[in-house]
Amino acid sequence: MNATPATPLLDTVSLPKDLRKLKPGDMRQVADELRAEMISAVGQTGGHLGSGLGVVELTVAIHYVFNTPDDRLVWDVGHQAYPHKILTGRRDRIRTLRQGGGLSGFTKRSESEYDPFGAAHSSTSISAALGFAIANKLKNQPGRGIAVIGDGAMSAGMAYEAMNNAREAGNRLVVILNDNDMSIAPPVGGLSAYLAQLVSSRPFLSLRDIAKRISRRLPDALHKAAKKTDEYARGMAMGGTLFEELGFYYVGPVDGHNLDQLIPVLENVRDAAEGPCLIHVVTQKGKGYAPAENAADKYHGVQKFNVVTGEQVKAPAGGPPSYTSVFAKALIAEAEQDDRVCAITAAMPSGTGLDKFASSFPNRAFDVGIAEQHAVTFAAGLAAQGMRPFCAIYSTFLQRAFDQVVHDVAIQNLPVRFAIDRAGLVGADGATHAGSFDITYLATLPNMVVMAAADEAELVHMTHTATHYDAGPIAFRYPRGNGTGVPLPEKPELLEIGKGRIVREGSKVAILSLGTRLAEALKAADTLDAKGLSATVADLRFAKPLDSALIRKLMLSHDVVVTVEEGSIGGLGAHVLTMASDEGLTDAGLKIRTLRLPDVFQDQDKPDAQYDEAGLNAPQIVDTVLKALRHNSTGVEEARA
Amino acid sequence: MNATPATPLLDTVSLPKDLRKLKPGDMRQVADELRAEMISAVGQTGGHLGSGLGVVELTVAIHYVFNTPDDRLVWDVGHQAYPHKILTGRRDRIRTLRQGGGLSGFTKRSESEYDPFGAAHSSTSISAALGFAIANKLKNQPGRGIAVIGDGAMSAGMAYEAMNNAREAGNRLVVILNDNDMSIAPPVGGLSAYLAQLVSSRPFLSLRDIAKRISRRLPDALHKAAKKTDEYARGMAMGGTLFEELGFYYVGPVDGHNLDQLIPVLENVRDAAEGPCLIHVVTQKGKGYAPAENAADKYHGVQKFNVVTGEQVKAPAGGPPSYTSVFAKALIAEAEQDDRVCAITAAMPSGTGLDKFASSFPNRAFDVGIAEQHAVTFAAGLAAQGMRPFCAIYSTFLQRAFDQVVHDVAIQNLPVRFAIDRAGLVGADGATHAGSFDITYLATLPNMVVMAAADEAELVHMTHTATHYDAGPIAFRYPRGNGTGVPLPEKPELLEIGKGRIVREGSKVAILSLGTRLAEALKAADTLDAKGLSATVADLRFAKPLDSALIRKLMLSHDVVVTVEEGSIGGLGAHVLTMASDEGLTDAGLKIRTLRLPDVFQDQDKPDAQYDEAGLNAPQIVDTVLKALRHNSTGVEEARA
Repeated sequence: MNATPATPLLDTVSLPKDLRKLKPGDMRQVADELRAEMISAVGQTGGHLGSGLGVVELTVAIHYVFNTPDDRLVWDVGHQAYPHKILTGRRDRIRTLRQGGGLSGFTKRSESEYDPFGAAHSSTSISAALGFAIANKLKNQPGRGIAVIGDGAMSAGMAYEAMNNAREAGNRLVVILNDNDMSIAPPVGGLSAYLAQLVSSRPFLSLRDIAKRISRRLPDALHKAAKKTDEYARGMAMGGTLFEELGFYYVGPVDGHNLDQLIPVLENVRDAAEGPCLIHVVTQKGKGYAPAENAADKYHGVQKFNVVTGEQVKAPAGGPPSYTSVFAKALIAEAEQDDRVCAITAAMPSGTGLDKFASSFPNRAFDVGIAEQHAVTFAAGLAAQGMRPFCAIYSTFLQRAFDQVVHDVAIQNLPVRFAIDRAGLVGADGATHAGSFDITYLATLPNMVVMAAADEAELVHMTHTATHYDAGPIAFRYPRGNGTGVPLPEKPELLEIGKGRIVREGSKVAILSLGTRLAEALKAADTLDAKGLSATVADLRFAKPLDSALIRKLMLSHDVVVTVEEGSIGGLGAHVLTMASDEGLTDAGLKIRTLRLPDVFQDQDKPDAQYDEAGLNAPQIVDTVLKALRHNSTGVEEARA
Repeated sequence: MNATPATPLLDTVSLPKDLRKLKPGDMRQVADELRAEMISAVGQTGGHLGSGLGVVELTVAIHYVFNTPDDRLVWDVGHQAYPHKILTGRRDRIRTLRQGGGLSGFTKRSESEYDPFGAAHSSTSISAALGFAIANKLKNQPGRGIAVIGDGAMSAGMAYEAMNNAREAGNRLVVILNDNDMSIAPPVGGLSAYLAQLVSSRPFLSLRDIAKRISRRLPDALHKAAKKTDEYARGMAMGGTLFEELGFYYVGPVDGHNLDQLIPVLENVRDAAEGPCLIHVVTQKGKGYAPAENAADKYHGVQKFNVVTGEQVKAPAGGPPSYTSVFAKALIAEAEQDDRVCAITAAMPSGTGLDKFASSFPNRAFDVGIAEQHAVTFAAGLAAQGMRPFCAIYSTFLQRAFDQVVHDVAIQNLPVRFAIDRAGLVGADGATHAGSFDITYLATLPNMVVMAAADEAELVHMTHTATHYDAGPIAFRYPRGNGTGVPLPEKPELLEIGKGRIVREGSKVAILSLGTRLAEALKAADTLDAKGLSATVADLRFAKPLDSALIRKLMLSHDVVVTVEEGSIGGLGAHVLTMASDEGLTDAGLKIRTLRLPDVFQDQDKPDAQYDEAGLNAPQIVDTVLKALRHNSTGVEEARA
């Protein structure tokens, strides 16, 4: 639908070495063509657009000035790396972005030597770049570590931990702070206010300033003050920046769209830096594409779109609501009834639906920035003082706060509610965003209650149940995407803790489902019935505590029992098996199979293809049952005899 | 053995309200008596001494000035809270510290309303205090959140995340930075250098300064500069501190042993602060007790000791070496052979044995401070550049870096070696330090290899095996304390990945052991043999990949199979059961039981008592086997028929 742009100069560049044959004055045209090419590609594939648009010039300048891939360039998060992919040998596949078998929407080691470190979660780049820098130092070989990190990502603790260790790397470490004053949502917190102040109070760096900032040849007056103390005095003596206080040379601010400034700044850092440098680059998310510049979210993530109008292909209207929106609405309803209900997001207000909650209850909504660790312990503090906090965090990001869940919540048995969105497979975002492990890592914890919603009506009940459960921590998980279309309850029910429900009665095969694979379990049951194999389907609702009475009953009354969950080994299936062996139910023979996510990190694909790969669709449930029924244990018996 | 000190004034204080009836001038005597009482108690119990000695005056001053328990006081880590315990109604039990049934060595909610938030892992206090402050604000009730946090703990990312969110709390948040320039080990990193500089370049605060720092009534000149911009300008205009840049009012430095200064400073903050305050208090670890002051580690953690001489009760000499020291020695041997071997600790050089490694290989040893997240991703960067990094982190602290293990190491399949010390139960440190979950949270991850050492010789083999395994991440766990006394190998063996070993051959009962419970498994086997029940014992070595061939063979050839591990549900037992059900081995009957840690957070006690409580000693293994053999599955069969 979109015309392919003419890119005569970019066509001559397939790798950074080609770029470096051109003149600095050519870089403007390369950037313009690169921007057009990226807009065209994302128009066709959908994906992350605004972030990439903001770093087109930066991408060109870095590859022009630094010696990639030997200088190890690490893009934080990596969703801004589409221009980088185009410049590093992947232009021919750029229109396969985020599709099954295509390029990842993030950086990925297996794609290119120019991606020395994959990403997708934020704030890892400085640590990784430091690793590269130090390894090269130990090996006495050239090569820097270069991290490009957004201002939002700087709010995460691990970025700070890495900065605190930067001195080790000397001038082999370059951190480029890409300050667009916006991550996915507008930024929050003291650091953000500080950066805004830094930018507004200082003019963009002139070329004359640059050398001063990156070498010890400080201006005289400052030098005199600094000499009094040790090398770390300089930041303080100068009224230095936070970064100088942590041991960096601070260079900035720099206009990130002005190649005439950007290239010499990077060259100076490359040639003259005497220690780790932080270059503060100011960019504009969505830069150079009017529809993105004018949109509130700067086209952070888009569907396919018309390049001329910017109009995105809309999803067909009228389908079931998303789980996220159902949760948000349910939580608002709870908060209307109860002053103690409050909610915390870690920089994902729209992704978790808490933006809606915040509109209704601004005082009780907390966006803490990319800071999951703080989010959970802060929630624990709120709970300890009698509030009813909900931590709404994606499954994959809750991994960031695992110790806080253990140490601050579970050990103290504090009633923090975990609303775990994006549980299970997630489609185009791929392995890094899959929520595969939460059942396992939560259900292993004493005191923890773990629920999974089978559909959006169940999600409403679970939100209600969690609100009223004050005995300890409670978590409920639900997937990405839209609900099943079941009617939403007018009045939410209080679920009995640790009790499942029979959804369909049968006699020969029992399918124990946890979460939204229930629909596939029911389809499988229909198929089995048609084959004369009467099937029971239970929605267990709880991975912990297990409904052992129900499970025992079904085990004793059916020939085959199959568990189904959208999670990795160690979760529901493992808990059911453990219960069965604890009780001796396997002693007399028990045909039990556990369906779960496979022991691989699954690449991005269409959700249904991912479920097929995982073996969690109805035909595979049926197949598992049939195989189990056919399984001849005579061999086993003989071997044992 | 030690005389009880005379404490006439302290005897009149059982709660902070008693303290507040006294005059400010009395606080010196209270502090002196409190210090003497604490030394006497810890002389008797052993425990953390240096940290508590450093905060005696601070403890007295806080309780004197603030309205505890309504002002919620959160001690970071909590091991410095012994004086606090004495002042808050627990003096009568202070000589039960860290003993079974006694007071915890950390703060603990169930002990006292003066412990509103428990701790033990570091750097959680600001987040928790913020939770208290905000909850009170939402409830329109008085009460601050007060965090006391050490300079070492400030290096952790979550402290920074919390500081970045402090503005929300306004003047309800007080952070007291207890700067003793030392956590367990000497501090590292940019922040530490910065704090040292801050202290050495500024005189202690005079009383005249105080009001200026905590209100907007800035001195004229500064005010003029600040007025130009918004409120965050003040830090910058002043050459402000890092804390001011993040939104705090910075007050300090303050001499933390001078009550004449400390009390008025706290009073001023209490009465006049207009926003979140950070009070920078300088203390001396081990203060006021000469043997502690003179020791390199400031008596961080001590055995029982003679108060007069400071001499600690020594463990009997000549026993087996600790696992920690065996690991350190083995790693040094590897590093001597291989330039690529390097090692990372997160502020635990002596606890992990890496202090010895650092003596031999200073360039290849990295102490990153309390920064587990950074440690793991830094290691991933090192591995991606061809090094062979070992992350030596306690099991319980590795939880802090779970997402980094998943996202940066396992997904990218990078060969980071995890040396997991303190796996399993840990005795006196109790639930917060137990390493209960690592098998579960690591073995659920694709690409991960998980080993557990059965004894110190195995640990040597595993260190060697990990060194030479470049195919992906590999972890090996080992417990706190001393080895079993087996001879150490002259030459370490390369273990075959995913292969266990038969330690003892039998025919009727098979015990599958992972880790150091092997000794108990062997004892149990002897008992069973004596009862005519011939017992096989296997040391599986690997929780992942499982030795399925071995396990299958043992399942098919024995009447009862029992797994034994020092870890919670979801680990070895779950993986063995899953394998058995996947293969249909349960179909024809399988008497299998899994022994694991119980589903509770176990309190501190002597190790053997903890194992008894957990059911992981030999008699309980025997008991499990006997019960399984006796278990009559007829009822099961009838119910199923």
